[in-house]
Amino acid sequence: MTTLEKLIESIEDADSSMMLKTQERLDRLTKPLGSLGRLEELAKQVSGIARDPRPKIRWKTVFTLAADHGVAKDGVSAYPPEVTPQMVLNFLNGGAGINVLARHAGADVVVADFGVAADLGKLAGLAHCKIRLGTDSIARGPAMSEDEALKAVLAGAQLVRQNVREGLGLIGTGDMGIGNTTPSSALAAVFTGLSAAEVAGRGTGIDDEVFRHKVQVIEKSLAVNAPDEKRPLQALAKVGGFEIAGLVGVILAGASLRIPVLIDGFISGAAALVACRLAPKARGYLIASHQSVEKGHAHVLKHLQLEPLLNLRLRLGEGTGAALAMPLVEAACKILDEMATFEQAGVSERSRTLEETKS
Amino acid sequence: MTTLEKLIESIEDADSSMMLKTQERLDRLTKPLGSLGRLEELAKQVSGIARDPRPKIRWKTVFTLAADHGVAKDGVSAYPPEVTPQMVLNFLNGGAGINVLARHAGADVVVADFGVAADLGKLAGLAHCKIRLGTDSIARGPAMSEDEALKAVLAGAQLVRQNVREGLGLIGTGDMGIGNTTPSSALAAVFTGLSAAEVAGRGTGIDDEVFRHKVQVIEKSLAVNAPDEKRPLQALAKVGGFEIAGLVGVILAGASLRIPVLIDGFISGAAALVACRLAPKARGYLIASHQSVEKGHAHVLKHLQLEPLLNLRLRLGEGTGAALAMPLVEAACKILDEMATFEQAGVSERSRTLEETKS
Repeated sequence: MTTLEKLIESIEDADSSMMLKTQERLDRLTKPLGSLGRLEELAKQVSGIARDPRPKIRWKTVFTLAADHGVAKDGVSAYPPEVTPQMVLNFLNGGAGINVLARHAGADVVVADFGVAADLGKLAGLAHCKIRLGTDSIARGPAMSEDEALKAVLAGAQLVRQNVREGLGLIGTGDMGIGNTTPSSALAAVFTGLSAAEVAGRGTGIDDEVFRHKVQVIEKSLAVNAPDEKRPLQALAKVGGFEIAGLVGVILAGASLRIPVLIDGFISGAAALVACRLAPKARGYLIASHQSVEKGHAHVLKHLQLEPLLNLRLRLGEGTGAALAMPLVEAACKILDEMATFEQAGVSERSRTLEETKS
Repeated sequence: MTTLEKLIESIEDADSSMMLKTQERLDRLTKPLGSLGRLEELAKQVSGIARDPRPKIRWKTVFTLAADHGVAKDGVSAYPPEVTPQMVLNFLNGGAGINVLARHAGADVVVADFGVAADLGKLAGLAHCKIRLGTDSIARGPAMSEDEALKAVLAGAQLVRQNVREGLGLIGTGDMGIGNTTPSSALAAVFTGLSAAEVAGRGTGIDDEVFRHKVQVIEKSLAVNAPDEKRPLQALAKVGGFEIAGLVGVILAGASLRIPVLIDGFISGAAALVACRLAPKARGYLIASHQSVEKGHAHVLKHLQLEPLLNLRLRLGEGTGAALAMPLVEAACKILDEMATFEQAGVSERSRTLEETKS
């Protein structure tokens, strides 16, 4: 078995008997049955993932992976490619959206260079996982070789292993890469079976003309590369990106280590599609943090059968949605752990029939 | 002018010029324009409310008001009325959902008795605002006198004044009262103009038979009392409840003191309908924390033109939705205050045309 096959093999289903046990406890807590809705489902999921009837979140880390895309030179973004390394510096200086929102959530941010088209070799505080200086344009051929894709996936998994701490944690996925909604759209088209026009969106805010061009570029990338959804690693190499491949590894490692993984927006969603195609059992470890404005994201979540926690019209990436949703997952665990039961609180719990309600 | 008229008179519109100034700063932060969606709107709203270009949240308090309802004896709830005082004890012992979620949000909980049908006079940690031992059944006449309604509204406002601290805070509304979705439905019908069947829901989880009975009870309460939406205080007295009246006061005082008020679920929404009918300018101070499962809540929010932050299928009340949404409001303020501008971070900000994007 290859290292990737071993990683995939190591992912087991979340523990459904633990989830049943958790449901029983939830039903004894001082609230009408099921009245905490989605929080109760989250509590069950996390307890099944952690194999713990009262899971406590001890640490939170957002993995913000950066890389450049050859296709950005084909005119698909509202921002120039030099913004990718500029934003990496902004991450390291703590001034970006993800820094503010991760601090607010009490989460760390691991910033990693998976293929930024600039020499960032000397930057302290940056995880150096660079495959090379940006992908080739998917409009003209494969983004990278299959070997490079494999290397990026394994580097993402290794990054998680290096940053795991004591006790149960939450992992958030995040991305930075000018042009990366284009490869993400191509991957979404491959794995959902939808057309480029159906999954492409406005990214950082392109106008109608650039949007039409972007759709054509995605269509061209699919025609030139003929990616096959049955060969997910190859499809990732053909129309993906280095940070997307790294996020596939982050997701697989999270699932392997039994850590809940909060999926951010569209780019992270594209990585989740690849990860779940490689390892279908990984899906049970995923929490969709939010519904992005980016059009294809709703299709991606539907395909993964994931229901987003937030819908705040975000379209920033970086892991911002994942960071915003982390307190909700913690809240769910605290409900399960800290609420009094009917018995403890001496509260009457029995539901009544109409006759009984007439006192 | 009466005390209530003075309170209403003291509410001014949020500062729209401050909101414009805030929009300008938001547009200079290192993110694509508008890419933080709803968080950017929240940041603007809070800066307009606080008259501060960089508002910082210094304290958070959820006001959980409890009272009993004569109509609960008419068989409209899945739980017996003795649950109201039992849950008040649970609140004071820190074991209820609102305790867990407020602690998680770093918020205090002010628990107040506005009319629980039990002697709670000796309980420490409870705010004593009891009007009397529960309302009369709205199915047979007015819930309370107009004097009692006024007294409850003013007590709610006074409770806020007593709990205000230094600097900008967030207020959350919360409720406890077996049977209180019934008067809330009646108020929702009065102020939205919809029928009882359209605004009534399943409350704590009643079955079909009890639900049909509940709709009839609401219809009867409207027929017997003939509440008039043009006389909001009188309508509140006729088909409301003591905790609902108290929440009207909480909302009005929050707006008067220029504090953002996070509205919880359906019962809080009914109070917001009354408050905004009394003082239309209060609406600008309201933040809809979540979309409740309770059917009438969507109608209430639509009528108030408020967009909920969360949709987690909650139907617990107590202020749980308000507590869960508080971190989002804080996140919005921190984005505004802590993110680097394009200039500070040395990030290229100009959007480009199609020709320019082809480098």
